[in-house]
Amino acid sequence: MKLTDLETPRLVLDAGRMEANVARLKERLARLRVRLRPHVKTCKSIDVARGLMQSPSGPITVSTLKEAEQFLAHGVTDILYAVGIAPGKLDHVVALRGRGADLAVVVDSVEAARAVADRGAGIPALIEIDCDGHRAGVKPGHPVLLDIAKALARGAQLRGVMTHAGDSYNCRTTEAIADMAEQERGAVVRSAAVLRSAGFASPVVSVGSTPTATFARSLEGVTEVRAGVFVFHDLVMAGLGVCRVADIAISVLATVIGHQPEKGWIITDAGWMAMSRDRGTSKQALDQGYGLVCDASGRPIDDLVVTDANQEHGIVGRRGGVPADVAKYPLGTRFRILPNHACATAAQHDAYHVVRDGPEVLARWPRFAGW
Amino acid sequence: MKLTDLETPRLVLDAGRMEANVARLKERLARLRVRLRPHVKTCKSIDVARGLMQSPSGPITVSTLKEAEQFLAHGVTDILYAVGIAPGKLDHVVALRGRGADLAVVVDSVEAARAVADRGAGIPALIEIDCDGHRAGVKPGHPVLLDIAKALARGAQLRGVMTHAGDSYNCRTTEAIADMAEQERGAVVRSAAVLRSAGFASPVVSVGSTPTATFARSLEGVTEVRAGVFVFHDLVMAGLGVCRVADIAISVLATVIGHQPEKGWIITDAGWMAMSRDRGTSKQALDQGYGLVCDASGRPIDDLVVTDANQEHGIVGRRGGVPADVAKYPLGTRFRILPNHACATAAQHDAYHVVRDGPEVLARWPRFAGW
Repeated sequence: MKLTDLETPRLVLDAGRMEANVARLKERLARLRVRLRPHVKTCKSIDVARGLMQSPSGPITVSTLKEAEQFLAHGVTDILYAVGIAPGKLDHVVALRGRGADLAVVVDSVEAARAVADRGAGIPALIEIDCDGHRAGVKPGHPVLLDIAKALARGAQLRGVMTHAGDSYNCRTTEAIADMAEQERGAVVRSAAVLRSAGFASPVVSVGSTPTATFARSLEGVTEVRAGVFVFHDLVMAGLGVCRVADIAISVLATVIGHQPEKGWIITDAGWMAMSRDRGTSKQALDQGYGLVCDASGRPIDDLVVTDANQEHGIVGRRGGVPADVAKYPLGTRFRILPNHACATAAQHDAYHVVRDGPEVLARWPRFAGW
Repeated sequence: MKLTDLETPRLVLDAGRMEANVARLKERLARLRVRLRPHVKTCKSIDVARGLMQSPSGPITVSTLKEAEQFLAHGVTDILYAVGIAPGKLDHVVALRGRGADLAVVVDSVEAARAVADRGAGIPALIEIDCDGHRAGVKPGHPVLLDIAKALARGAQLRGVMTHAGDSYNCRTTEAIADMAEQERGAVVRSAAVLRSAGFASPVVSVGSTPTATFARSLEGVTEVRAGVFVFHDLVMAGLGVCRVADIAISVLATVIGHQPEKGWIITDAGWMAMSRDRGTSKQALDQGYGLVCDASGRPIDDLVVTDANQEHGIVGRRGGVPADVAKYPLGTRFRILPNHACATAAQHDAYHVVRDGPEVLARWPRFAGW
């Protein structure tokens, strides 16, 4: 089967680009002497994850218990559920552990630590540290760490500390990302030291975001890095300088379904349902609309972007409202459109159509969704 | 089963609100003496569609051939595929017609009309009219209509004209929506007249959008109305004055997983994966963030909105950055969050959990996704 045989829109995965992305990060982390715990919330696919994991049993990071379920069904057992645990999910956690998953959870309050300990099942837990003020977590080195550790000791096991420098997505320079990586590292290393000095072993010191993993100068004291987007990369990462546009491994195959010649609009069948509503590049120097338009081989063409999107219609024009030469793209023309945000766009599709240096579809790798 | 038994996030459907929304639009259209061809791109569920359709065979409007496939499998045969047809999809259309679907397609150029006619299968086609400059379609009454009709005559069948006043979503007053409805009506009635005066029967004159369907003063000359969002309504519709917040029939059930007490943030497990990235209220007078927060019974509380969202984290605060009283919402508290855009939020979920005036989950109605 060839790409031209696929009914559009469909999600395409360039295996060569993906493998290069993975090799690049793995080399970096090997030099920094830290292991990778890839975040599979981006791919939600065992076929993709196999190329990321150190061994068939993991380790991996997940964002939902559905991901834990699905990967456990494929033999992956070393799993960190990296979203603060809700008490109502603890029975599910215990059930997954009972089926062989070494599943660890995350807490950031005494209240949550008590809930995990009260379950009385020795569930391993990491304390989440807020390294950049963007979301959840305890302030680095804050004395409440010891209260949480004590609460966990009553029926859970403290496995360590973790943080996520999500604010690295808002950096303007790679130098700023490197500084953020140091801030991320410092936050967890300092927090682990507070715990250890009070006699609490904190074997795991976990950081992670694709930008900070790419530009960290040192990861001394860190035991593992969690990153997800790097496997595919996307326009937000390219805008940050974390990758090149030519590294982006997923695209949405679309077909031209019409034109508005007077406006220089090309209309495709890839609307926001296929691209997602993510507009992550809108705050960056180069706004890529709902996606950057490439030809069928995956090369950007004529500065075309998806300027607007309805559910199943994408409006393509030249960047900055310049009319496109619509006659070059007759009805039926195929585009491949690079996404702003790989996690969001991939989530709109049920499978990857895998290509490698050509139009042959070598495999269809299913992906799952939901909770 | 009760709502409290569901692992979150999950999509909840209030059947009473939905039935009232459907009854209200049906009454309006009955008074205007025009039939409803509901757009099932919003619900993607046969269980929901059964309450919308005139009969078990339809009619319905779809936005993908996957929707046509799925509804045909449940006996729905009267189907309009309301997105401009790509030539590469014609074999699929013919296959669906061969399996009993009276499936009609849409064209807006001579090029597309030729492709449909050249397939030689007598496929019924409507000509799309651009009533508001927002997307696809031929200018109302433009002479190219006759060229398209002639091209269709060579191997397809001209079934009529259709338009969609998508720009009604940008209206500021209900008066402006009523004017837009008149503009929508005029565009297709005038186009049908051009075709008829040249001897082309144009039996179907189709309009549709939830706002214009709600406020049209007259639908004289129109034979059918397509609308989708009205079944659930959403915050964008409430912001337009098309419904009340209390009419919104779907919500995302979420659990409090943490707090940032100093900032007055409540953190939930409903991030953008559960809510979608849609920010449709950001341009309206009242920005609802990523969703309006209700208590477990579905009533808005304390002016709480989802102020920011990561993939599986929602940050809840009071509107306008005012800190929330986080102590009122301890770990494990359940919220129901109303969506900006029903089509986008529902698309993130695989089922509706149906309730009626209480916490009992009366049914789980599956929905499908993809193409």
